[in-house]
Amino acid sequence: MRVKEFGEEDPRRVIHSFKVGLALTMVSLFYYFKPLYDGFGVNAIWAVLTVVVVFEFSVGATLGKGLNRMVATFVAGGFGIGAHHLASLSRPTGEPILIAAFVFIIAAVVTFTRFFPKVKARYDYGFNIFILTFSLVSVSGYRDSQVWTMAHERLSTILVGSSTAVIVCVVVYPVWIGEELHNLVVTNIENLGEFLVGFGDAESNNNGKTLGEDHKSVLASKSNEENMANLARWEPGHGRFRLQHPWKQYLKIGTLARECAYKVDALSSYLNPHVQPVDEMGSRVEAACRELSTECGRVLKELALATRKMKRPKPADAMVASSRAAADNLKLVLDTSKWDRQRLVELVPIAALAAVLLEIAETTERIADAVVELSSKAHFKSADSAVSPEQPSPPPAAALPVSSGGA
Amino acid sequence: MRVKEFGEEDPRRVIHSFKVGLALTMVSLFYYFKPLYDGFGVNAIWAVLTVVVVFEFSVGATLGKGLNRMVATFVAGGFGIGAHHLASLSRPTGEPILIAAFVFIIAAVVTFTRFFPKVKARYDYGFNIFILTFSLVSVSGYRDSQVWTMAHERLSTILVGSSTAVIVCVVVYPVWIGEELHNLVVTNIENLGEFLVGFGDAESNNNGKTLGEDHKSVLASKSNEENMANLARWEPGHGRFRLQHPWKQYLKIGTLARECAYKVDALSSYLNPHVQPVDEMGSRVEAACRELSTECGRVLKELALATRKMKRPKPADAMVASSRAAADNLKLVLDTSKWDRQRLVELVPIAALAAVLLEIAETTERIADAVVELSSKAHFKSADSAVSPEQPSPPPAAALPVSSGGA
Repeated sequence: MRVKEFGEEDPRRVIHSFKVGLALTMVSLFYYFKPLYDGFGVNAIWAVLTVVVVFEFSVGATLGKGLNRMVATFVAGGFGIGAHHLASLSRPTGEPILIAAFVFIIAAVVTFTRFFPKVKARYDYGFNIFILTFSLVSVSGYRDSQVWTMAHERLSTILVGSSTAVIVCVVVYPVWIGEELHNLVVTNIENLGEFLVGFGDAESNNNGKTLGEDHKSVLASKSNEENMANLARWEPGHGRFRLQHPWKQYLKIGTLARECAYKVDALSSYLNPHVQPVDEMGSRVEAACRELSTECGRVLKELALATRKMKRPKPADAMVASSRAAADNLKLVLDTSKWDRQRLVELVPIAALAAVLLEIAETTERIADAVVELSSKAHFKSADSAVSPEQPSPPPAAALPVSSGGA
Repeated sequence: MRVKEFGEEDPRRVIHSFKVGLALTMVSLFYYFKPLYDGFGVNAIWAVLTVVVVFEFSVGATLGKGLNRMVATFVAGGFGIGAHHLASLSRPTGEPILIAAFVFIIAAVVTFTRFFPKVKARYDYGFNIFILTFSLVSVSGYRDSQVWTMAHERLSTILVGSSTAVIVCVVVYPVWIGEELHNLVVTNIENLGEFLVGFGDAESNNNGKTLGEDHKSVLASKSNEENMANLARWEPGHGRFRLQHPWKQYLKIGTLARECAYKVDALSSYLNPHVQPVDEMGSRVEAACRELSTECGRVLKELALATRKMKRPKPADAMVASSRAAADNLKLVLDTSKWDRQRLVELVPIAALAAVLLEIAETTERIADAVVELSSKAHFKSADSAVSPEQPSPPPAAALPVSSGGA
């Protein structure tokens, strides 16, 4: 029962499982058919092994592993043959000592290189395979003089295995990690927008419980996004994404979305129990706060929608005109409100709310800038209704009826 | 030059690289010496391969991979032999079809199982190796009737390789991931404490720049901590850590530390430009805020110190007595302050500061509770000076000269 639910939650899990089975069965055919078996020898089993370790959920991960494995095997095979020949010059006593020294040095140097963050992000697997193949070729060379055959067979079988994995991964219902990253970042911004719109809507607040916890997932999305961007760079152009799609820009937007989420999280701690409008002035400030929350939420939702459709949004200034007007209005209300009560303590929650919301408005503007930058770097299509960035429209004179907030 | 710096930054990277070289050279000896070679046959190369893929930076990761690999090879070898025998009953035409069907089904089912979060966290590698070994044994069985020998040799060589990796990893300057997790969580709390103490110290604020960005790293530590806790559970007892050390409690503390860090991050946006005491009342509130920040910082630093030394801290109530007194003082100041200016806007930053600090004080208390819980679950030793939890001391009558703050 729970297994079925788990599969239905994301049917791609079931599809992926069938894809792995298919690729593995396909590559096993190499072993079944005698002509191929004779060609590759007992090492044909490396092709099976390659499929199992290279096949990943997304195209980017599979391609990254496959390319790493193929290139590393090729280069390390060459090094291994070289080491074997060097060592065999001092046959017989010096050879095992030299081989052991080579293995030790290569393993230590390559392992150290793997610690460098840039290497770790993209080539970790390749460097591991490099050590592996170098050891296999140079060590087996001592026993088996057919070192060339060994290196050649290992390379061919790995080419066959990697290609099978990549082809099945791309041809049958491919999961593009770049698209996943795109959707993740869009959904994160959308969730923040939903929360802010919900927070701005006083009625739904009074009903309680309508504000979800969706923004919480944004808080911890950093390592996931970075990993996805690294993998996305292995993917060729597909669908609406070109080869040189600016994946790094998604990380920039993701970072800003997280900054916004920290503040939204602070906001959620000011929910019902705290904010109780104490008097007419309090109500005015609260209304302006809710208005600002709604407008920021709308801007974020609009940005998310444009990005999801890969349409070029309006210029950043036009996008944030409404939220900026609401922020100005809140500042004006704060500036002109008279406070005729003695006790500062009653004022703290509402003042804190205003301060956080003004910061959220600022972050919203930075997110708008980053999204506009993405749309230009990624050559999103201009929407029919959107104003092209070359001809910025003058900011709307009276953007909004600012003081008639939602409270 | 940069390589040298990178090595000096964390010398364990250099040590680890030598350890990998050592283990790999050691296991290559199996291949050199003829008696061993004759015993294991050409499959001795699996031992080399195992060392390369199993050897990880920490003991927990190496042990986890090694155990996963050994158990999965053993079980999958059995399944593979079973599948081979079943298939060979319908020799010759049915056999390849049956083998292909077995491989397909096992690969699909096991791949699907790997998606379950609990499996993924601890047994992902084992399930991968299960598919691998099952395919190798059942598929090669079709060509090579010595399927028992194949399964047996694969298991023996993998035992040799895994043991070599684990022994070298544990014996030569071991890196215990549990200790790393312990230190990471302690350092995170310490960084938050440092920041709050620094924030409370008005003079250093005026000099500017003394407040670091150390708390930023706490914000994104979630996935790292979870990964470490998963690996730590593979480690045997070592040094001051027992086998059943409550690693999950560290995740609880880590989550609270992150909540605190979100608020500290909000605090850092109220630094110099915003907070300008406007009058005598503003100065009083600011002084009380700084006092509270200092006290929260001291509590966090004390908690971090006790945890680092694995000493039992004072009971939670006694730990937070000073910060609670400072929070009460801030509330009192807010409650009694008279606000004789008209404009609300000048009040917003200081009110927001007070609100955030009161929340930080609350989170500090929850961190204290969680640390005390850890110290009891992990059987930390009682410090000489600490009061045992069975005899709680009465809270100090006059905890602090509360209003003479640092401003």
